[in-house]
Amino acid sequence: MQKPLILVTNDDGITAPGLRALISYMKEIGVVVVVAPDSPQSGMGHAITLDSTLYSKKVSVDLEDDAPLEYSCSGTPADCVKLALQELLGRKPDICVSGINHGSNSSINVIYSGTMSAAIEAGIEGIPAIGFSLCDYSWEADFKPARDYIIRIVKEAIENGIPKGVVLNVNIPPLNKEELKGIKICRQARANWKEKFDKRTNPNGKDYYWLTGEFELLDKGEDTDEWALAQGYISVVPTQFDLTAHHAIQDINNWNL
Amino acid sequence: MQKPLILVTNDDGITAPGLRALISYMKEIGVVVVVAPDSPQSGMGHAITLDSTLYSKKVSVDLEDDAPLEYSCSGTPADCVKLALQELLGRKPDICVSGINHGSNSSINVIYSGTMSAAIEAGIEGIPAIGFSLCDYSWEADFKPARDYIIRIVKEAIENGIPKGVVLNVNIPPLNKEELKGIKICRQARANWKEKFDKRTNPNGKDYYWLTGEFELLDKGEDTDEWALAQGYISVVPTQFDLTAHHAIQDINNWNL
Repeated sequence: MQKPLILVTNDDGITAPGLRALISYMKEIGVVVVVAPDSPQSGMGHAITLDSTLYSKKVSVDLEDDAPLEYSCSGTPADCVKLALQELLGRKPDICVSGINHGSNSSINVIYSGTMSAAIEAGIEGIPAIGFSLCDYSWEADFKPARDYIIRIVKEAIENGIPKGVVLNVNIPPLNKEELKGIKICRQARANWKEKFDKRTNPNGKDYYWLTGEFELLDKGEDTDEWALAQGYISVVPTQFDLTAHHAIQDINNWNL
Repeated sequence: MQKPLILVTNDDGITAPGLRALISYMKEIGVVVVVAPDSPQSGMGHAITLDSTLYSKKVSVDLEDDAPLEYSCSGTPADCVKLALQELLGRKPDICVSGINHGSNSSINVIYSGTMSAAIEAGIEGIPAIGFSLCDYSWEADFKPARDYIIRIVKEAIENGIPKGVVLNVNIPPLNKEELKGIKICRQARANWKEKFDKRTNPNGKDYYWLTGEFELLDKGEDTDEWALAQGYISVVPTQFDLTAHHAIQDINNWNL
């Protein structure tokens, strides 16, 4: 049987430790091709590059004998996936995995996530796709405790297929292996960020802001990703790109339009 | 009764004709404050500015006697809304309207849309919000035929409230007033872009790409936004930011995780 072709990408950039960890795990499952941004793209949401040029080049980061084919790309995570599927890969990949992100993409963070936008882009193009994030922003974060779980999730996704129109959003609590309790399939918790802007004045007297904020969980449910993570589980949220609020159609039909 | 406070933003930038049209319509309904990007942000999806500074300044674009308070912001549409709500507006606005975008944000385009990301950001923060887009990319597009419909939709939204967790995605076909048939509440059509990358070589011998593509409608339903637009209706899709594919949770619970 032909080994599965696995497209690996991320939003922290091609040299990020989380990406390198994911590549090494995926090499155990199939043939890996990497197409990742040449610089960090965190918070890029589902941005795409419309009015400027995209550069891409073949690079060597991994120096092992079984090093995968790797391309860096000057665009966003969604650009990387588009370019990979249309230009760089010879055939349709069997799965696209994005990450491992340095930091959480649980609950409302999925909306701002470059990691998930890459997975969603692959999903839109009909490729099974999964975004992985470790809830630890540190560049020195330890990805190894989640290794076996990540491999298991990807293998099961290849074997079972992911339902059409759905991509998986996987978040991993920053625990060591003995503390990880397993995997829970969840819904996205209701939450938001309570923004605070740190206002400063630059050396030329011009005011500017830094965006900061505090995470605010608005959801007490025990079936959410935030709940699972707090309990020590890896959360898997099936995530869709049909954004229609079907339940609201009738409501709005009652308006006087 | 106090006039409603209306936050107006967009993704084409503060001088875009579509924004100026929306401001003039909203001045008929309430007190308008504008916080919009200082440069075009099309295709920005739900990007936010994490690692760089945000500048904002009070500007005068409209020179009428009843000119609204206006701020330009160096960030993305989502940044504009965050900054408006936390720093620039004195009180919570009664509604946030984004647009009028020069170009369609129907079907899958909602995912890439800066216009809708502004509306979604407001929705996340609990503000009723609507994104408006005219399916005409021209800078000289004629927004007037949709004027009465836009005013009616905003008035009804203020009066009835928009269901919690939902924002409206309104798209307008590029027709004259007599040809516009009315308003349809719809679901998001299933569609994607068949990308084509135009590969070129720069004067220094380096290859680069332009992203181009062809829209591919995959949905024959007569309850979709694409169908309504093709029939001459203005489409209104209630859009949510809980991305959970609830129907898929059971499926994935059957995997061997």
